[in-house]
Amino acid sequence: MFEAAELGRKISKKDFAAEEPGLHTALLEAQRQLRGTRSPVIVIVSGVEGAGKGEVVNLLNKWLDSRGVQTHAFWDETEDERMRPRYWRFWRALPERGTIGIMFGSWYTRPIIDRVFDRIDANAFERELHRITEFENLLIEDGALVVKFWFHLSRKDQQKRLKEEGGGKGGLPLKKFARNYNRFVAASERAIRVTDTGPAPWHIVEATDRRYRDLTVGRTLLAAIQGRLARPVGTGEREPAKPETVPREHRLTVLDQVDLRRRLSPRAYAQTLEKYQNRLHKLAWKARAAGRNTVAVFEGWDAAGKGGALRRLTAAMDARLYRVISVAAPTDEEKAHHYLWRFWRHIPRAGYVTLYDRSWYGRVLVERVERFAREDEWLRAYQEINDFEEQLVEHGVVLLKYWLHISAEEQLRRFKEREQIEWKQHKITAEDWRNREKWDRYEAAVNDMVARTSTHHAPWSLIAGNDKRVARVEVVKTMCERLEAALDE
Amino acid sequence: MFEAAELGRKISKKDFAAEEPGLHTALLEAQRQLRGTRSPVIVIVSGVEGAGKGEVVNLLNKWLDSRGVQTHAFWDETEDERMRPRYWRFWRALPERGTIGIMFGSWYTRPIIDRVFDRIDANAFERELHRITEFENLLIEDGALVVKFWFHLSRKDQQKRLKEEGGGKGGLPLKKFARNYNRFVAASERAIRVTDTGPAPWHIVEATDRRYRDLTVGRTLLAAIQGRLARPVGTGEREPAKPETVPREHRLTVLDQVDLRRRLSPRAYAQTLEKYQNRLHKLAWKARAAGRNTVAVFEGWDAAGKGGALRRLTAAMDARLYRVISVAAPTDEEKAHHYLWRFWRHIPRAGYVTLYDRSWYGRVLVERVERFAREDEWLRAYQEINDFEEQLVEHGVVLLKYWLHISAEEQLRRFKEREQIEWKQHKITAEDWRNREKWDRYEAAVNDMVARTSTHHAPWSLIAGNDKRVARVEVVKTMCERLEAALDE
Repeated sequence: MFEAAELGRKISKKDFAAEEPGLHTALLEAQRQLRGTRSPVIVIVSGVEGAGKGEVVNLLNKWLDSRGVQTHAFWDETEDERMRPRYWRFWRALPERGTIGIMFGSWYTRPIIDRVFDRIDANAFERELHRITEFENLLIEDGALVVKFWFHLSRKDQQKRLKEEGGGKGGLPLKKFARNYNRFVAASERAIRVTDTGPAPWHIVEATDRRYRDLTVGRTLLAAIQGRLARPVGTGEREPAKPETVPREHRLTVLDQVDLRRRLSPRAYAQTLEKYQNRLHKLAWKARAAGRNTVAVFEGWDAAGKGGALRRLTAAMDARLYRVISVAAPTDEEKAHHYLWRFWRHIPRAGYVTLYDRSWYGRVLVERVERFAREDEWLRAYQEINDFEEQLVEHGVVLLKYWLHISAEEQLRRFKEREQIEWKQHKITAEDWRNREKWDRYEAAVNDMVARTSTHHAPWSLIAGNDKRVARVEVVKTMCERLEAALDE
Repeated sequence: MFEAAELGRKISKKDFAAEEPGLHTALLEAQRQLRGTRSPVIVIVSGVEGAGKGEVVNLLNKWLDSRGVQTHAFWDETEDERMRPRYWRFWRALPERGTIGIMFGSWYTRPIIDRVFDRIDANAFERELHRITEFENLLIEDGALVVKFWFHLSRKDQQKRLKEEGGGKGGLPLKKFARNYNRFVAASERAIRVTDTGPAPWHIVEATDRRYRDLTVGRTLLAAIQGRLARPVGTGEREPAKPETVPREHRLTVLDQVDLRRRLSPRAYAQTLEKYQNRLHKLAWKARAAGRNTVAVFEGWDAAGKGGALRRLTAAMDARLYRVISVAAPTDEEKAHHYLWRFWRHIPRAGYVTLYDRSWYGRVLVERVERFAREDEWLRAYQEINDFEEQLVEHGVVLLKYWLHISAEEQLRRFKEREQIEWKQHKITAEDWRNREKWDRYEAAVNDMVARTSTHHAPWSLIAGNDKRVARVEVVKTMCERLEAALDE
């Protein structure tokens, strides 16, 4: 989930200076228009220690007109607060309609901290998270705009930042936080996953570069308020906010992290592939004996080599143990049901492997980009998909999700090759060329998909595919590793 | 919560025979119109053992056209089902758009049974219930109409019914169910409370009289389908279904159960009142020492004597210990917030008593009847209020909810008296007379309010108010009893 926030995104001093004044003015104008509307705006500032939440709060107060903003820092509960139900303090801090409330710390803080220090168990934690969802829904149904920021630092960057700051400000046990980084990130991932709803999505912001962090906050808040101003409120309709809206030029995606330069010689390929295929052969039987299902999802660019990679998996396994589901346009029967129905029906029995060539992720990829699904539909699909996969994983399914990545140049090369080689011509159509023109939009969709659906139990595997040999070995190897880990449990 | 389903509602053979043919025809016509729409209809048939769920399923199959209906009975899981995630069987059973699926047993059965037999703890149970809410929301967002029936029998009626049936059909441990009646009802109440959402409300049906039960099911289902046909689907807007729509003539309400004939002599009144007031005086100090908050809500008909009853409480307590909040029209500041905000702000510190003269229930009473709130707003308010009160109770607040009841005739007598006695004239306005004309609608609203918000921890106390002396003693006595129970814990 945090992969998309460890990309090293940066903005130069010059670019910052060029954009900041315009952003400042636009925020003031948006704030002016907000007055008199039925919408209070609730900005939640949260994230790992050291990510500069205080700096962000100060910046927002600098950018916005102080007459329409209130900041609330939720330190330890006062005696007055302890003597009342816990949400009392949050209700007291809610902004009036037409104004902005900045929540420094919030209803998220205590459940996460309690979970990190094992003061509550997993089920009690879930209950707290559902209470949050219900609280936010109640506010949203009443017209509120809820903008949630999570500021992320990698473990390494956090340690660096805490050292810079000399640690120990405000009596907070910074060292303790650093020691508990992994537990904190795991609990936070879960909290974000459960509360990342269509109408109140999380914005996970990479906080390593201060200028990138600040501009991202400004742009995201501006887009959210402008979106709300453009839409009527109080019709009972739930209007989802837009996800991250950073312009392309500053936008690294998770795909930029994939090292496409890796190459494998034919000989090394043959040897390694055989090694992993043998291993997979045995593991598939072992999984059958242990009654563990495996579900693998293949997504990727056109011509990225999904079919070839998939065949390297099936070649390794006994044909009785697996099934390949090719996902094409839905049948009439499938259209008569919820979009997830067609995938539920193919869930394998215990002990078997199902390989999906394209999958339920079509909802947030092609259906989003081609506008087959409305925005509110694909926005809520992230949570629907997470819920679905959670049920698979809870049942013991080993879930693999492959994205086969190639560069735009490599795709072009392969398209041209396909046009020239007669027996490959059926593989290239006008639609492939049209899709290619939407590369940027697909790239943004893939980034959001990974950011919102890559979880600890169901991570995305981004496969470098410019060299098909590298991709094929990686696909088989990944399945071996995941099966080994699962069967060892 | 089940008070409104233990009223002894009945329908005569003659009335049934007069209505059934028309209902049957109307259902067939609604079903015909449903075809070709985007909405599947999911009918959930659940409730206590012996309530005749099987009979209802058979009846629906008789009434409806078999070409558009499928019935699914969820017996014990098959091996095929056990080998897949639990919701797989439910997904498989979902009806196609434009058709009706009758679910005999459902996703509710196992969590409730597991809880009854202590196979899962309270938090795990909550998690299952939230999973259900999310599942139903996902279906509803996709266009489904979910109609949920819960058939209720009192413990006595259940035992009678099970004896009639000779017990033990289908190998189900009926005796065990009867033994566990209280645990079952408690778990069911919780399940209904958490999953009783605006778009998928529960219909709790009194099942003692078969004809009443059957006509209620038919009418409710018909109204729900007709409501859906009248509204466009797929706009992203969540359209709540209407609550119970039984015509007035067959409609007993919880208020009919209140015995208004009780009288108390002036002398008995003086003695009993003094006894309970003395007791309350001590209890209020004891609660203060124990740090327990008390919140009491006063609702009731105009001229039912709320003010007088409330003063009998305050007269008993030290003035430092309580506060009275008179809820009038909201201030500008209050209007700028969520409707619950004004009530949250007055929540007392530990150890104190707050008396609300009218309350948050205005949302589902006056705002509903006078159409100040939209239907989707007051429908979802039941859950918002339950959530709010649950937070109070969890924090240790002793929560009392009084409805002061008088007959329509008694109200008329008091209105006239007020007009004639000069110093009482300010208490009667044209609005009071207008409200009186809406007596039936208020009565239905009160019944729904009690049915949906009277829970084990926050029950409604319906006070017989035709004799003011009876009412005043009862109000003070009830608070004594609740405080004693709470302080004894």
